[in-house]
Amino acid sequence: MPNTARWAATITLTATAVCGPLAGTALAASSPTALYAPSSLVFTTGHGEIAAEATPERAVTLNCAPTASGTHPAAVSACAELRAAGGDLNALPARSDVLCTREYDPVVVTVDGVWQGKRISYERTFSNECVKNSYGTTVFTY
Amino acid sequence: MPNTARWAATITLTATAVCGPLAGTALAASSPTALYAPSSLVFTTGHGEIAAEATPERAVTLNCAPTASGTHPAAVSACAELRAAGGDLNALPARSDVLCTREYDPVVVTVDGVWQGKRISYERTFSNECVKNSYGTTVFTY
Repeated sequence: MPNTARWAATITLTATAVCGPLAGTALAASSPTALYAPSSLVFTTGHGEIAAEATPERAVTLNCAPTASGTHPAAVSACAELRAAGGDLNALPARSDVLCTREYDPVVVTVDGVWQGKRISYERTFSNECVKNSYGTTVFTY
Repeated sequence: MPNTARWAATITLTATAVCGPLAGTALAASSPTALYAPSSLVFTTGHGEIAAEATPERAVTLNCAPTASGTHPAAVSACAELRAAGGDLNALPARSDVLCTREYDPVVVTVDGVWQGKRISYERTFSNECVKNSYGTTVFTY
């Protein structure tokens, strides 16, 4: 192989090795069609009986596709619980090992966004914070 | 100092050094009262005239407090733009340097969640993808 051809081959190989992974990343990030149905949610919680009258004291995000992420403090297990419940927040089982007082200090939870490509707009009121946390294990504990 | 006392002091100091930072982190993560108003949003986009009839093709999350994060591809600049617009999505300026065709292929954008402690539920339809992207610089480009 003449010297120039060898150099050209070397430069091409180097460029592919250096830029290949970057180009791949850029392509995936800007790809208009994702290969999975999106699952991105925003959770809020506040004191009150209905969301419209309750100031959202905390708000966290949760993404479950392609991987679990977000400001939800237990994103991985929250995603696993949601998957187990088929994305139905009303299907989260109440834990029988939790003891709560009967104090009435209502907290309202909202969940908005998309679960496996379907829109979700959810609101649920619990009689107090302890009762809220007794549904599921980590989904509502943020 | 007797040997036992010296050992006790060493163990206490070691425990503080090892567990101190962890305890601090755990405290901050589980603190019920955040030191900032939450700003957590979920953005969707889909083809159609109204969100109720448009499948959300993409969905991303955006957190702007305490720092910018989320699956939004330009979280830092999207937060900066939202702050500049006072959180009012209708106040995002249309860029005059963008040329779009007049093709009618409507896309609908939704934004739900909390901005600086106030609930947001926003929906807006653009005549095509190019027009959508011409509002603001990065907020709607995901």
